[in-house]
Amino acid sequence: MSNLNPQRTIDELKELRALTGDENGAQRVAFTDTWAKGRAWLRAKLEQLPVEIETDEAGNVWATLKGQSDRELLIGGHMDSVPNGGWLDGCLNVLAGLEVLRRIAAEGQPPVTVRLVDWADEEGARFGRSLFGSSAASGTMNPDDLRHLVDKQGISLGDAIGAYKLNLDTVKQAGKQLKKAAAYLELHIEQGPVLESMNLPLGVVLGTYGVERHAIRFTGQSAHAGSTPMDKRKDAFGAAAKLGLEIREIAKRHGGVCTVGSVVTRPGIVTAVVGECDMTLDQRHINADLLGRMLHEAKQASQRFAEEEKCGVEWNRIWQIEPIHFHPDLIQMCDAAIMETAGVVHRLPSGPLHDAAEVARAGVPTIMLFVQSLRGISHNKIEDTREDHLAMSVEALDKLASKAMGWIVGR
Amino acid sequence: MSNLNPQRTIDELKELRALTGDENGAQRVAFTDTWAKGRAWLRAKLEQLPVEIETDEAGNVWATLKGQSDRELLIGGHMDSVPNGGWLDGCLNVLAGLEVLRRIAAEGQPPVTVRLVDWADEEGARFGRSLFGSSAASGTMNPDDLRHLVDKQGISLGDAIGAYKLNLDTVKQAGKQLKKAAAYLELHIEQGPVLESMNLPLGVVLGTYGVERHAIRFTGQSAHAGSTPMDKRKDAFGAAAKLGLEIREIAKRHGGVCTVGSVVTRPGIVTAVVGECDMTLDQRHINADLLGRMLHEAKQASQRFAEEEKCGVEWNRIWQIEPIHFHPDLIQMCDAAIMETAGVVHRLPSGPLHDAAEVARAGVPTIMLFVQSLRGISHNKIEDTREDHLAMSVEALDKLASKAMGWIVGR
Repeated sequence: MSNLNPQRTIDELKELRALTGDENGAQRVAFTDTWAKGRAWLRAKLEQLPVEIETDEAGNVWATLKGQSDRELLIGGHMDSVPNGGWLDGCLNVLAGLEVLRRIAAEGQPPVTVRLVDWADEEGARFGRSLFGSSAASGTMNPDDLRHLVDKQGISLGDAIGAYKLNLDTVKQAGKQLKKAAAYLELHIEQGPVLESMNLPLGVVLGTYGVERHAIRFTGQSAHAGSTPMDKRKDAFGAAAKLGLEIREIAKRHGGVCTVGSVVTRPGIVTAVVGECDMTLDQRHINADLLGRMLHEAKQASQRFAEEEKCGVEWNRIWQIEPIHFHPDLIQMCDAAIMETAGVVHRLPSGPLHDAAEVARAGVPTIMLFVQSLRGISHNKIEDTREDHLAMSVEALDKLASKAMGWIVGR
Repeated sequence: MSNLNPQRTIDELKELRALTGDENGAQRVAFTDTWAKGRAWLRAKLEQLPVEIETDEAGNVWATLKGQSDRELLIGGHMDSVPNGGWLDGCLNVLAGLEVLRRIAAEGQPPVTVRLVDWADEEGARFGRSLFGSSAASGTMNPDDLRHLVDKQGISLGDAIGAYKLNLDTVKQAGKQLKKAAAYLELHIEQGPVLESMNLPLGVVLGTYGVERHAIRFTGQSAHAGSTPMDKRKDAFGAAAKLGLEIREIAKRHGGVCTVGSVVTRPGIVTAVVGECDMTLDQRHINADLLGRMLHEAKQASQRFAEEEKCGVEWNRIWQIEPIHFHPDLIQMCDAAIMETAGVVHRLPSGPLHDAAEVARAGVPTIMLFVQSLRGISHNKIEDTREDHLAMSVEALDKLASKAMGWIVGR
């Protein structure tokens, strides 16, 4: 493995930052010039390897190193970033994969075909639709849902991708890219505080949380703050506050996460009891049954609190997705690769979704590994990871790639 | 008292509604044409009585019935309304006072001078500054605080009152109107649910609540709803929800009212833990010590909740006013007047402020009586009171006026 140079990955991350970032952070928003500049820079590096490079109908870039078998090991990431993003989110995955590809290529023809993929528009920062390229490839995308999307300047998603010679009518033809995929690997920064709090560099990702996302409205009666005694109120915020606290108990009881991210009060003036209160609830769990249980308990609690406060309550689902479990064999291999690299390992679910979730939904055996995020912060220019941890993450991904190739050959 | 005709008051209220209301309710916003129309209609009625009519430097209209003594009994109200207001708020006070003035005038020269006052801009609906005319007269107004006020059309308060020949430089000269005042009476709809819930037509008002009004900010850390475990959060909404529930316990413990009217969450998106939460707190009590206690306990609780949630907390006072107590002798007389009229009576504080509070602050012995509001609703076209209750309220005000005249003479 002497051909692997993790320091080169760190150097290239800094090179990319200098090329496509500014004082506010990374600016590689998908389907913009800065994103294209980052991709051209990547392509120039790939062209130094014995790989075939192609862009599919969804804008995903594939670099293929032919192996003795046409069964494929995929390593993926995304060059696109949020506006004012961090220097690691997405591009660490790609550049670590590039380094692994270099190492494998340097050793001659590999036993299986190895492909690096740069997914198009993972973040969905411009049109509010994440996992664009990977969901087109996995087949879960319904292009008709995307036709009405426009950015803040009023440019439609269709026009924006048209400038890159893509068309919503044909994006799902990218699905053919996964036909021979035997395994998919993705390294990512954790974007959360778990590994840092345990003082661990690396973790095996068990899968991605299922999500239940709802809008809840409590309806009471707006009333004068001075003339309405406490026991005569129908206080919509009282009900919302109770639910806001109860969902935290529900999360702890079942080992998931529950979040009230937005609360809006109406009329929302200092001298009036809140007559109507809207709140959002986001519930996540790796276990589908427990996710369902968390939702049921939250709904029951909201009914109880509405009654206590003499309010009405109404729920509307915003979005949901089932939990996605990564492949048990790959979990074992990833665990071993991390142990060999760092001597310690932890298994954890992923709260955020990633392209890996889409690949798993397409039936491809999938695994992710996380590297520690400092302060758990991402989508921000202060996003950071210790350089020794970055180097270990490249090394662990490389060891995992070797194990996965052996596993594909042996199946 | 056979000259008193409470039905006439009810008829005149309906006449005024037809003249100055529309399908959305009363439209007599101060310093507008519709308000002026209502006042001209009132003036025509006053001109049929042996009274002198004048408008003071703050736009308050005074109708003076000279008595044997130049010590004065004042009866007040306000013709102005909020936009889309009810048919009783403010004008019931004036028109009941008009009927009492008629009755007294019909009996010849009264022992003391009796004056009806129509205060200018009690509601403050257009410029956000209530009790305009009465605070000018009481002297608590600082005209410089009003110079920057503009309405939604960008018209300054100075220009708006200028159209009615008033000037902020001279408004406080209205203070001379209170120089000979020996007592002030004001009837008002309750604008709350207390009397209705007790099935009582009328109540004696003990005074107006003191108010502490504050903006509170909890500062935690915005974090990803999926990647941040429950025990790693700094949840600003968690702290706000706890305080929102605790202030209700504080209110009940001390017999006051506490209200969270507005809550704002930031970033306020479904996928992020709330990093910053602003809330308003309005606390009211008739007892200054207990009001201070309620504020102290809320502050202490906010510190405790901030610590529990690993957040910071910051308080900023928006406004405060001390409790104002009405005159004990007048409370007794009002109690007796209501007992004689209705056979039952209840004493209660007023949550909302009224012009009476300003008169009391000027040192004039003051009392208010409340008539039941249906559903406790005001500042809305559905504001209503039973007609038999309205008639009783005119009768009770009349009895109170007689008792107050006797009391002034006897002092």
